[in-house]
Amino acid sequence: MNLDNIRIVLVNTNTPGNIGGVARAMKNMGLHRLYLVEPRQYPHEEATWRAASAGDVLDGAVVTETLDEAIADCQFVVGTSARGRRIPWPLLDPRKCAERIDGIADDQQVAILFGREDRGLKNEELQACNLHLNIPTSEDYSSLNLAMAVQVVCYELRMLLAADSVPATEDAEWDAPFTTREQMELFYEHLEQTLIDVEFLNPTAPRQLMARLRRLYSRVRLDEMELNILRGILTETQKRIGKR
Amino acid sequence: MNLDNIRIVLVNTNTPGNIGGVARAMKNMGLHRLYLVEPRQYPHEEATWRAASAGDVLDGAVVTETLDEAIADCQFVVGTSARGRRIPWPLLDPRKCAERIDGIADDQQVAILFGREDRGLKNEELQACNLHLNIPTSEDYSSLNLAMAVQVVCYELRMLLAADSVPATEDAEWDAPFTTREQMELFYEHLEQTLIDVEFLNPTAPRQLMARLRRLYSRVRLDEMELNILRGILTETQKRIGKR
Repeated sequence: MNLDNIRIVLVNTNTPGNIGGVARAMKNMGLHRLYLVEPRQYPHEEATWRAASAGDVLDGAVVTETLDEAIADCQFVVGTSARGRRIPWPLLDPRKCAERIDGIADDQQVAILFGREDRGLKNEELQACNLHLNIPTSEDYSSLNLAMAVQVVCYELRMLLAADSVPATEDAEWDAPFTTREQMELFYEHLEQTLIDVEFLNPTAPRQLMARLRRLYSRVRLDEMELNILRGILTETQKRIGKR
Repeated sequence: MNLDNIRIVLVNTNTPGNIGGVARAMKNMGLHRLYLVEPRQYPHEEATWRAASAGDVLDGAVVTETLDEAIADCQFVVGTSARGRRIPWPLLDPRKCAERIDGIADDQQVAILFGREDRGLKNEELQACNLHLNIPTSEDYSSLNLAMAVQVVCYELRMLLAADSVPATEDAEWDAPFTTREQMELFYEHLEQTLIDVEFLNPTAPRQLMARLRRLYSRVRLDEMELNILRGILTETQKRIGKR
């Protein structure tokens, strides 16, 4: 997928601040091509302020008088839509939609359309689309802010690109090797002896103390550096009480 | 997962408008519990304006003086973080993070922390967390607006809840059955005959015309209503030229 082949098209945006918010959301996720179809007020200082460090996206925005001009050269057009339109259309959530675009935006031009803040896209605009996109929401309040909707869609595109660069597990970027079973057993022996030395553990009535400590350190999964720290504490403790 | 067990905690928010944007993003995705740790200006009309129809989330927000107060009763705490902190911490993207929370928020209290607009969370705040969360961004511009970051994280939680309610395929909500092979063969026969009747197709030199038309209608996958429309057109065409 080449994000440079994907344009975000805002149709008849009413609030200039939203245009700025969209520009920032796009740049944060690596998109740059913004089209504005007949915006009510643009350029506007509120747009510039909300764009923050995405002024270059605003500067490069293409303003057109009609939707047709904005998407004439596109091979694939997606329109954001509320659900329940009269004529059903292929409808996907942002994740599935991003997966569809992934295969197309290698070498084709893709447009993603976002409608007016209050009324969305008109039926005839939606009928220019190959696919409709719906962002899942709470039934209590389903109207997303325009820039938020763009953020979610661009985030899903980014997630596809980032699949390799974001850690897939919590351990991926750890800076020390995790301990082996053998190291842990030596630690438990050392811990148990120290607890006996400090007379916290009575070897003739040990109860479940060591079992509980094993469960604790198993869950946390120590790395070697942490293990060295703990063993250092035990060794020093033993020295202090004259057992080593 | 019970979204009522998940709170969004904003630490030292500088811009009141962002608090309103967060409230709206939360309610759109079905979250309601907002905590504000020492906000710079709150309440504020800009917050109210940006919240739009999520005023109830603002009204219910809990303002605290310290982070500890906001998360004291939580069993699981997630902190949003830039990458590359000095001491590595378990780090996940918003999707994996939502999957972790999913199993916990059935019956435990979960907090998701978002830091200051300019500097994020401090190291000691991050060290109060069980897990760190990082939103993938473009390297060119990695600083998301605060409300946008909350939107993305709440969206991922919503997606887990919505898994069953959003169509998994483009066809899921179609309103007419798709055509069978047999219906399509009858259509192609009818089409071919009509093209011969109107002398568009020369049966002694047919070239690849029908193959191309078959490929077209195969790709689009007609439903029965559409097929009836097309066959109606063919029948009327034949009638008009006296072939039927």
